[in-house]
Amino acid sequence: MRTSPAIFAPHDPVALPDGRDGAAMHGLMADLYPICRSITGDGVRETLRGISRHLPLTVTEVPSGLPVFDWTVPLEWNIRDAYIKNRAGERVVDFRKSNLHVVSYSTPIRCRIGLAELKKHLHWDEANPDWIPYRTAYYRQTWGFCLSYNQMLALTDDEYEVCIKSTLRPGHLTYGELFLKGRSDDEVLISCHVCHPSLANDNLSGIAVATALAQHLDRLDLRYSYRFLFIPGTIGSITWIALNQDRLSRIKHGFVLTCVGDGGPPTYKESRRGDAEIDRAWKFVLGATGDGATRPFSPYGYDERQFCSPGINLPVGCFMRTPHGEFPQYHTSADDLDFVDPRALEDSLTRAIDVIDVLENNAYYLNQKSCCEPKLGKYDLYNGIGGGSAGAYQMALLWLLNMSDGHNSLLDIAARAGLDWGTIKRAAEALCKAELLVPARLPVA
Amino acid sequence: MRTSPAIFAPHDPVALPDGRDGAAMHGLMADLYPICRSITGDGVRETLRGISRHLPLTVTEVPSGLPVFDWTVPLEWNIRDAYIKNRAGERVVDFRKSNLHVVSYSTPIRCRIGLAELKKHLHWDEANPDWIPYRTAYYRQTWGFCLSYNQMLALTDDEYEVCIKSTLRPGHLTYGELFLKGRSDDEVLISCHVCHPSLANDNLSGIAVATALAQHLDRLDLRYSYRFLFIPGTIGSITWIALNQDRLSRIKHGFVLTCVGDGGPPTYKESRRGDAEIDRAWKFVLGATGDGATRPFSPYGYDERQFCSPGINLPVGCFMRTPHGEFPQYHTSADDLDFVDPRALEDSLTRAIDVIDVLENNAYYLNQKSCCEPKLGKYDLYNGIGGGSAGAYQMALLWLLNMSDGHNSLLDIAARAGLDWGTIKRAAEALCKAELLVPARLPVA
Amino acid sequence: MRTSPAIFAPHDPVALPDGRDGAAMHGLMADLYPICRSITGDGVRETLRGISRHLPLTVTEVPSGLPVFDWTVPLEWNIRDAYIKNRAGERVVDFRKSNLHVVSYSTPIRCRIGLAELKKHLHWDEANPDWIPYRTAYYRQTWGFCLSYNQMLALTDDEYEVCIKSTLRPGHLTYGELFLKGRSDDEVLISCHVCHPSLANDNLSGIAVATALAQHLDRLDLRYSYRFLFIPGTIGSITWIALNQDRLSRIKHGFVLTCVGDGGPPTYKESRRGDAEIDRAWKFVLGATGDGATRPFSPYGYDERQFCSPGINLPVGCFMRTPHGEFPQYHTSADDLDFVDPRALEDSLTRAIDVIDVLENNAYYLNQKSCCEPKLGKYDLYNGIGGGSAGAYQMALLWLLNMSDGHNSLLDIAARAGLDWGTIKRAAEALCKAELLVPARLPVA
Repeated sequence: MRTSPAIFAPHDPVALPDGRDGAAMHGLMADLYPICRSITGDGVRETLRGISRHLPLTVTEVPSGLPVFDWTVPLEWNIRDAYIKNRAGERVVDFRKSNLHVVSYSTPIRCRIGLAELKKHLHWDEANPDWIPYRTAYYRQTWGFCLSYNQMLALTDDEYEVCIKSTLRPGHLTYGELFLKGRSDDEVLISCHVCHPSLANDNLSGIAVATALAQHLDRLDLRYSYRFLFIPGTIGSITWIALNQDRLSRIKHGFVLTCVGDGGPPTYKESRRGDAEIDRAWKFVLGATGDGATRPFSPYGYDERQFCSPGINLPVGCFMRTPHGEFPQYHTSADDLDFVDPRALEDSLTRAIDVIDVLENNAYYLNQKSCCEPKLGKYDLYNGIGGGSAGAYQMALLWLLNMSDGHNSLLDIAARAGLDWGTIKRAAEALCKAELLVPARLPVA
Repeated sequence: MRTSPAIFAPHDPVALPDGRDGAAMHGLMADLYPICRSITGDGVRETLRGISRHLPLTVTEVPSGLPVFDWTVPLEWNIRDAYIKNRAGERVVDFRKSNLHVVSYSTPIRCRIGLAELKKHLHWDEANPDWIPYRTAYYRQTWGFCLSYNQMLALTDDEYEVCIKSTLRPGHLTYGELFLKGRSDDEVLISCHVCHPSLANDNLSGIAVATALAQHLDRLDLRYSYRFLFIPGTIGSITWIALNQDRLSRIKHGFVLTCVGDGGPPTYKESRRGDAEIDRAWKFVLGATGDGATRPFSPYGYDERQFCSPGINLPVGCFMRTPHGEFPQYHTSADDLDFVDPRALEDSLTRAIDVIDVLENNAYYLNQKSCCEPKLGKYDLYNGIGGGSAGAYQMALLWLLNMSDGHNSLLDIAARAGLDWGTIKRAAEALCKAELLVPARLPVA
Repeated sequence: MRTSPAIFAPHDPVALPDGRDGAAMHGLMADLYPICRSITGDGVRETLRGISRHLPLTVTEVPSGLPVFDWTVPLEWNIRDAYIKNRAGERVVDFRKSNLHVVSYSTPIRCRIGLAELKKHLHWDEANPDWIPYRTAYYRQTWGFCLSYNQMLALTDDEYEVCIKSTLRPGHLTYGELFLKGRSDDEVLISCHVCHPSLANDNLSGIAVATALAQHLDRLDLRYSYRFLFIPGTIGSITWIALNQDRLSRIKHGFVLTCVGDGGPPTYKESRRGDAEIDRAWKFVLGATGDGATRPFSPYGYDERQFCSPGINLPVGCFMRTPHGEFPQYHTSADDLDFVDPRALEDSLTRAIDVIDVLENNAYYLNQKSCCEPKLGKYDLYNGIGGGSAGAYQMALLWLLNMSDGHNSLLDIAARAGLDWGTIKRAAEALCKAELLVPARLPVA
């Protein structure tokens, strides 16, 4: 394969107007929305070029035919135009109006056929009669069109000209990667898929939040290194894993970002391990406000399927709002820019930043004065007239001292004590400064 | 002791008209209902003779006086007739009308006594004034009669002739056994008690379902060997365990069948271990339809008390519908043939067959392509246009591949995934055929 | 330090009229209520002298300045009088009316100041405008007064004479201890704090229940030795722990008694271990009646904070009724003698006695006839005509036989079986007498 940042002109990445602003993320989505993406092809490249206006992406081109585990990198698919014309020469289905009209990876075709034969190649959704469904045929040599149920009803018993100007040739699978070096070689992996055509929540929302998150992290002094993947779903993550097997052991935490822009509450799907630190961090962050939910791992979903396959088994979960398939707009033309709420994007970004703040600061400490409580007043950690009740900060001090025996991390303590992360962090800093806590080398077994 | 199939004429067992038909099971119960059974005696022999019209039972006769653990095989009890006559010579209580009228194991008696003295030997149930209770006096040298509360009220201050024509002499304890040889010497034990007189649900229902289940299994190619016990309660199972100690380690799973014919929902009582495979299999089967319930082990009940005594501790639970003592007809004359619903018998049989199907097919597998998902399309395990949602079979494939790391059996996976057993079995077969799964020698520790 | 029973005249302790009578406990509280206690000083001594009318306390005097872990035994504080006089010479705040009026450990002061300056040293509670709050300033060199909100409002813009006739000098910290020798050197620790001034529930109630409990135990033949501590909160328990480090390993169970006289339901707060035998015993006892609640450990509360600090980590919980801070009268003048209900004191004492009965009698046994059930009739442990249902005692026999494999204590079995403690104890005694159970040397691992 060939790693080619060269395909994009050298540039200084442009920060989104305000990295944490929902409107800016929505704007990036709007830029990328018209592009016809698939798992390979120029649509992916154009998308990565759009992202690289904001981030110094490294782009990798992997040649068709390369074996990757049980799979093979497929032929590259591109499409210029497609339509169904009636005898009057009118385009009754027109790729130029929506790139969802063509089944992704359709083979090229040009022919005239009757309605009955045509219908064998049509897909519609009777339940949502005005929406165009999204369908793919990646590894089948076939072609097809998607259209709304009402469009389908309007087709008369005519002869139709069918035309798909696509190419399916040896080429490349393309993905983008951004590596932010932290103080440690241990990595946090954040992945989103870039293979869906004009669908907004799935997954331009994930692309936008990942982009803003990377910009945010780039301004911080980081403990972990962060690796962002902008990859085609399934074959993209399989390819990336196959090409990076020797580096997988560096990945200590990770999550997939998908469908993070709809109006539903935030949802975290656990990694296959279920109780990895990333799982506990997300549960803590979503639990803190009470409006988020956690779901157990299941082997269906997005690229966590590959990261969590049993031979890989990385601690990688998936963050989303309404899970795929649980909103009716899923995989239809109704998953458009209007469906995505900028406030939801902002909230998703905030949650991800909160989780990363937990990962960055989580640690095990040892109480240096573990026989009875230390006299906090000596360290200026206790003030005020006694006899009243303890505030959250005072409670955080007591919890930290009591549980810092090397078995409990800050996250464990915060979760157990029901304290918010900021408070526990400040209290731990103060106790460290007073030399009442010192970092434990390792969790004590 | 003497093993004596000889007590029954050689014969070809007769299948019930339709082994899974509730009416056929009810018919067998009706045949056996009139017999006066106890823990020893000709009633048990006649009952085993009735069962052996359908199954090639091996019958064992164990002599009175044989020590079995802390117990001794008792004297054999038989009874020809019994009554209480008033001065007018009328039978006011008559064994010929119901064998429940005599306390089981009553010593022979013939005397004349007044009402006050007689009442010391009478048992009735004021709460259910028309029902005759069932009582026993196995290990006490005493006699007694049971009668309805209304019968008792009708007794005048008369002198009564009391007569029990019973014998209590050295003889044998009799039990029946059926062994179905499977491919493995590992055994599944299925036990039911045959010591209750004319009571239908407790436990002619268990006898009927066990008989039909054995007939069903006899037609199958079996992985496990199956041992059916038709034994007197308590002393029968204690005797059987004492005489078979060297074979107990072969028993990998088991359950007692009792009270399986009433209209209540199916209920499984866990073995003492609580999480044995048999416990998980029953919970899975009953949980699948949502109408069954599981109860934790308790040391009161039926012969699971002996199989689950701490020094034996076999993985043997108990399947029933309404647990003993929780239906008012329990141990009264109202537990008659009308109380048993043929549809309940059928449902009980179906559940037992389902559990055995789980045991027969449960196994640990290893995914041979565990790094990322295998490309199911290559193995004809994926069809259709992508973009839609996955069906149960497709989900079963994914769950099996993801969890088959040698730690999770098919049962574990089905329970975790919420999939039905048939689907998971078919999916596992397909994955084995594709050589994506291979059997794991053992659960991987 | 100096151990000085000598400070009290030798005497024969006087039992409370009836050790388990709530009125008697309330009477002891009334005797002690007027005393102005703090963490050191003559108020503590007078309190211990009052308790020692009923118990042969050993009193220890620990000199100011002694280092105890991270702390130092403080100067001794005593107070004779205190007031705030207006220009007319009237005492508008008067220590003689309530010892809560002076912030505990206030430095001596005598001066004239204006209202604005005075208010910087005043504490009140606007939410409860008639109550005087309780405040302390143990380790700060300051002074202050507490008064009701309405008193504060009545202060006019006057010049005030402020006077606190206190002393803060090298002296001693004083605590009382009672050791009841049992058959074993293993100890149960029962601790209550004696440092609060005229507050009834917190903690004269704990002192009264501890006194009655000690009198009750003194009349029994005990398995464990019992150590009662009557100590100042925090610095008292820290001092005691520091001076008794070599004996801590003898403490097998323990609990703090605090706020045990209000009308709320009984509450047990778990030790830091959470599943120690003392935790399970309290949960069993409170769970049996269904009106008690258990709370997880938290590092805020009473002296369990010290006993459960991570380097000490003793199995010491805390028994109370309404937890501190959850009743509005907490740490105010409204926590007076009327606030304490003699029936609540009685109930608290009964619960503590019940828990100690569990500890005293809990043990592991081994079933000597573990293969099948023993024939209970042989041992006179089964009587009656069979066929009916089993009572609680019969169930206790069966549970004990089934679970006595060396892994389950009587407490485990009672909790699992849902049986009351008296029944399980009687059943275990009967089984031991029949030699069906024998004590297991240790829990079998």
